[in-house]
Amino acid sequence: MDHENRVEWNIDVGDKSLQILEPKNESILMRLRDKLKALFIRVRRFLKKTWDLGVDDPRRVYHCLKVGLALTLVSFFYYIRPLYDGFGGNAMWALMTVVVVFEYTVGGTLYKCLNRICATFLAGFLALGVNWVAAQSGHRFEPVIMGISLFVIASVTTYSRFIPLVKARYDYGCTIFILTYGLVLVSGYRVENLMDEAMQRLSTIILGTCLCIVISMLVFPVWAGMELHILISSNLNKLANSLDSCVYEYFSDGDEESKNKIEDYRCVLNSKASEESMSDFARWEPAHGEFSFRYPWKIYIKIGSSSRSCAYCIETLISRLDSKNRVPETIRHHVSASCLRLSLSTSDVIRKLSTSVFSMTRSTQMDRAVIEMKNAVQQLQNDVKSLPDLLIRSHTKHELLELIPMVTFISLLIEIASKIGSIIKVVEELAQVAKFRHTEDEREIQNTLAATKIANKEENMKVLQINV
Amino acid sequence: MDHENRVEWNIDVGDKSLQILEPKNESILMRLRDKLKALFIRVRRFLKKTWDLGVDDPRRVYHCLKVGLALTLVSFFYYIRPLYDGFGGNAMWALMTVVVVFEYTVGGTLYKCLNRICATFLAGFLALGVNWVAAQSGHRFEPVIMGISLFVIASVTTYSRFIPLVKARYDYGCTIFILTYGLVLVSGYRVENLMDEAMQRLSTIILGTCLCIVISMLVFPVWAGMELHILISSNLNKLANSLDSCVYEYFSDGDEESKNKIEDYRCVLNSKASEESMSDFARWEPAHGEFSFRYPWKIYIKIGSSSRSCAYCIETLISRLDSKNRVPETIRHHVSASCLRLSLSTSDVIRKLSTSVFSMTRSTQMDRAVIEMKNAVQQLQNDVKSLPDLLIRSHTKHELLELIPMVTFISLLIEIASKIGSIIKVVEELAQVAKFRHTEDEREIQNTLAATKIANKEENMKVLQINV
Repeated sequence: MDHENRVEWNIDVGDKSLQILEPKNESILMRLRDKLKALFIRVRRFLKKTWDLGVDDPRRVYHCLKVGLALTLVSFFYYIRPLYDGFGGNAMWALMTVVVVFEYTVGGTLYKCLNRICATFLAGFLALGVNWVAAQSGHRFEPVIMGISLFVIASVTTYSRFIPLVKARYDYGCTIFILTYGLVLVSGYRVENLMDEAMQRLSTIILGTCLCIVISMLVFPVWAGMELHILISSNLNKLANSLDSCVYEYFSDGDEESKNKIEDYRCVLNSKASEESMSDFARWEPAHGEFSFRYPWKIYIKIGSSSRSCAYCIETLISRLDSKNRVPETIRHHVSASCLRLSLSTSDVIRKLSTSVFSMTRSTQMDRAVIEMKNAVQQLQNDVKSLPDLLIRSHTKHELLELIPMVTFISLLIEIASKIGSIIKVVEELAQVAKFRHTEDEREIQNTLAATKIANKEENMKVLQINV
Repeated sequence: MDHENRVEWNIDVGDKSLQILEPKNESILMRLRDKLKALFIRVRRFLKKTWDLGVDDPRRVYHCLKVGLALTLVSFFYYIRPLYDGFGGNAMWALMTVVVVFEYTVGGTLYKCLNRICATFLAGFLALGVNWVAAQSGHRFEPVIMGISLFVIASVTTYSRFIPLVKARYDYGCTIFILTYGLVLVSGYRVENLMDEAMQRLSTIILGTCLCIVISMLVFPVWAGMELHILISSNLNKLANSLDSCVYEYFSDGDEESKNKIEDYRCVLNSKASEESMSDFARWEPAHGEFSFRYPWKIYIKIGSSSRSCAYCIETLISRLDSKNRVPETIRHHVSASCLRLSLSTSDVIRKLSTSVFSMTRSTQMDRAVIEMKNAVQQLQNDVKSLPDLLIRSHTKHELLELIPMVTFISLLIEIASKIGSIIKVVEELAQVAKFRHTEDEREIQNTLAATKIANKEENMKVLQINV
């Protein structure tokens, strides 16, 4: 210990008290040092985690720089005299707009920008009208009329936010509507040239939103639609991973890799909120990549919901893993091959669906994969049929009760295979509405290559879990 | 038809053309009338739904009136001259504050108010400091220093919003921090008496937030904590309903009531986001009702997550309902009594847990209920053990394959009973940390009475699904 170098804080209150204080002080200092050490470690861990957020997905860092850039640009309105002379104190509204409308995804930014402009415009004109009416009715009734109109407009608009459709698409617009209505209305009571004031404010808001839209769309854009597209197909892949790992674990001791992948399905359970908000944002986005303007994002929500229904079943399957030791080895061995075949063919279908969604193609190999899955189900059922013979033939005496865990596991496996049916149906619907291309086998290879990119993109999905 | 009374819009372009136009016009009018009719019906249906939102939960209406009231009160700052003279144009900030911070729950309002005040205060002082430093460095470098500081502060604060803890508790504060910093900083470049300006703005913001807090807490308050409390216990009740109905449907044809209740568990699947946001808000609330200030809301999230894990299993169980017709009647009859006993005793435990959470008491009957559930599991396992004898005794020849659906159903039922264990554990943790009272049997009756109130409150839960 660096005892000599340690600085000690002794309070000089005379020799005697110093002696009494000395050992006490030392222990306080020791404790203080320990606490500081612990604090230092905690801070370092926190900073490490914070740093990792950016390393995991550099787009987060780009987003922050974009916000900084937009704000700095808009602040030039104050610094440069000709611009300031044009807008005056109203330049403040451009700055405020940038702060509140700049969102992580292009869709989120567009949603807020369009809501803000429309709501400001509508509320401004309504307030000017009411203001004019109030002004005609004399100075005495003016505040009464204005007060009542503000109360009614604020209450009705707040009520409309409870309507699910309004909540999903115009929630921000409602806030801005009340805000602008209130501001313009009450300003009218004191400010002359209200019209000029309102127009100037509207133009600075438009200026701020335009800046946000341009920066958000041109500098490293993050499209909500694209994120949803990747999330949905990567979630399908995760279902396949979990299913494979679970069945592999059941019939062998499993390895580190399969143990890690077995919990992948949890992402599917937790991504409902992300999917919904991304689909809400995506509808505001213009055509980008391979997605047209009115791309059927709603169908993605359906795929997500079918995937989740399948994930519930996988959760139940995984919770059966504990029971594997209660199954006699002979029985487990009897069905292991056909169980593995079924899980492999089911996950193959899921992966093909994921590739199909991701690459927006219809694969010719899909039908073959589904037939293989159905055959695997058939074979497994045959194996189960022959189980009683096995019981009779085997030397050790087995009871039916011992079969239950195995039979349940198999039954759940077949249930999962049957649930894939509904995912296939929804993906087929998407393929028809979004006009997926048909592929030859040659293309197929490219698609699987493309699918491997999903794995790399999966990390990026963490952003969205946090961000939406 | 009221053909005579119908007003027709004919364009008078001479006799001949009128004759040609006449029949065409009529069909256009007919179509127009049909379209108007359809529109009218749609509008009426929409209005009906909107009306029902308020009838289902009058608290929504109160909320809207509260917002209207707060805004009208704050607008008096403009109308009344002495108040206006005190604050001037800055009274605008009070109005703006009311619009953006007034939330449905007290916790939501407090979260935004405290975030807004602290962020405004901190950012204001930081901006004044940087402004002073920039002013010392001469008129030439002033915009450069200010621009760089704005860029850095905006980027770093935006980045911090990606940290989950900051996101959950201080997200709104971050927005306000950037906003205030930007506004005060750039205003400083043009405005004299910046300090006065900043203080005036801060005081109007504090005034607005105080008004919101007072109205939100005193006029029909909606406590996020109370809502979470009711949601969690009503969700447990819904699990019990679904379980009972599902098993009842499996062994009988079921009635209308059980068919309606079978989908109750879906609420549990979908309430993750509501639970989390309500627990985030509840931590800002002061002591209310029986909840102390630092009530362990985090444990509610754990109960919710265990309930969901159980709901996944119930979903799988319900999806097995289709298979009931593939089970031979003799077999179904053999296990029906013990299956019903298990489902009743399991749902009894769940309902007791719900009552325990709702009334914040530990019931002495809980242990007995758990023992009864364990006995029911034992009896069901015995019944399954005797199934092979039944197969031999029965006159018709049954195969093992025919047993599979039944065995799977039973196995899932036992799985659900075992999952209740984890809910019991978390409720026990809550009971210890929140110091639940012990009850005598006499009290027990009151609790069950209290539990019936939950059912009436369930309707209100729709608000929260939409609102958070």
